[in-house]
Amino acid sequence: MTGTLTIAGLGPGSDALVTPEVTAALAAATDILGYAPYVTRVPPRAGLKLHSSDNREELQRASEALRLASEGGKVVVVSSGDPGVFAMASAVFEALEQAPQWQNISIRVLPGITAMLAAAARVGAPLGHDFCAINLSDNLKPWAVIEKRLRLAAEADFSIAMYNPRSASRPEGFGRALALLKDAGCGERLVIFARAISAADERIETVTLNEARPEMADMRTLVIVGNSQTRRVGRWVYAPRQVR
Amino acid sequence: MTGTLTIAGLGPGSDALVTPEVTAALAAATDILGYAPYVTRVPPRAGLKLHSSDNREELQRASEALRLASEGGKVVVVSSGDPGVFAMASAVFEALEQAPQWQNISIRVLPGITAMLAAAARVGAPLGHDFCAINLSDNLKPWAVIEKRLRLAAEADFSIAMYNPRSASRPEGFGRALALLKDAGCGERLVIFARAISAADERIETVTLNEARPEMADMRTLVIVGNSQTRRVGRWVYAPRQVR
Repeated sequence: MTGTLTIAGLGPGSDALVTPEVTAALAAATDILGYAPYVTRVPPRAGLKLHSSDNREELQRASEALRLASEGGKVVVVSSGDPGVFAMASAVFEALEQAPQWQNISIRVLPGITAMLAAAARVGAPLGHDFCAINLSDNLKPWAVIEKRLRLAAEADFSIAMYNPRSASRPEGFGRALALLKDAGCGERLVIFARAISAADERIETVTLNEARPEMADMRTLVIVGNSQTRRVGRWVYAPRQVR
Repeated sequence: MTGTLTIAGLGPGSDALVTPEVTAALAAATDILGYAPYVTRVPPRAGLKLHSSDNREELQRASEALRLASEGGKVVVVSSGDPGVFAMASAVFEALEQAPQWQNISIRVLPGITAMLAAAARVGAPLGHDFCAINLSDNLKPWAVIEKRLRLAAEADFSIAMYNPRSASRPEGFGRALALLKDAGCGERLVIFARAISAADERIETVTLNEARPEMADMRTLVIVGNSQTRRVGRWVYAPRQVR
């Protein structure tokens, strides 16, 4: 008997941001797989197996999820935010490509509120005009690619959402990214540091790029660099719709 | 008595994609404002006034919402998808900037599943690597800005989500955008046409850019152009996590 594999986004942290279809998938699951802090968000119950794993083990986790589904499980792989944005969905399809015997498993991807949308909503509308999203981790791509994309994004005058800006194992990159954007003439742009959005320890700070320091970010921070027209009104930050 | 103004995202169409906090805000509202097809998605009830308006009247609608809130209403402005992505949130903050008398109104922005996330989930994980989102409407920005951004996005090898690709009043731009990307060497890239995602008349088509024709898109279509490494596995389309 073949089971099903659902790749579900839990949103940024609050239950009020989990979609009903994700809630229903979790309620019907036999197995939940994911990075430990995300699996912890699923309440335990009889008949449900929770499989936590480490952050770096995405491909292994994806293969394990496919294997459990092939044996008849109702398997849900959970990601924070949206599973399709720098999260588990790509890893599952990579694993699927390597394992033709599993290609008839029924798979669904359920979207979620990704960190940049939750962060943007908290401060106003900094993604109200054209923007890009860049993963600042160089675990799976050369740092030179990140620098090239940042430079082109600045030239395009995109607002820039930066995921995974800084971690204990990658303390240097984010400072280099800020320096690059300053060199590209973005010093006066507004930068939003949004940490642990919608969780109890949420913290948000908005400064200019010239005032930004690398220590303002960690792995739980989503950074949004505004475009050249991003502005404040009262406590809010937004990108105007119009470009002249 | 001052009321409240909530700017809420209804997601792409299905109720299964509406977050609980948006559902709660709609249930507590006295007034709902928005573009007619979105207001129609809110069930009528006693004590709730529905204010529909035309697509082009965003700033006027935003001012009206602020006025109603200043008079004590529990006002909800609804957008399809996420209100912060090419939708009503920026318009409200623009209106607020023009009207200092309203700057003490309590405002909340509630995020939603934006079209590109819903479309990406349906086909796999085409936004699993760095990407950008560009509004193809030139109502509020010169077409030359759009062309410049497309060119730089291709050079950066971003996947490109195109919002509002084509409408009756703007039939030409999308064809020019496709031609530009072909000239930029993207002809073999995969292009996803995702129409009316999660609604009853949903339709999805994936072709190469060389095969793409402008008529494949209309105003209800979200287009995703893959990056140079975007690939198929079975019926799925995804962007690998790794770049060499």
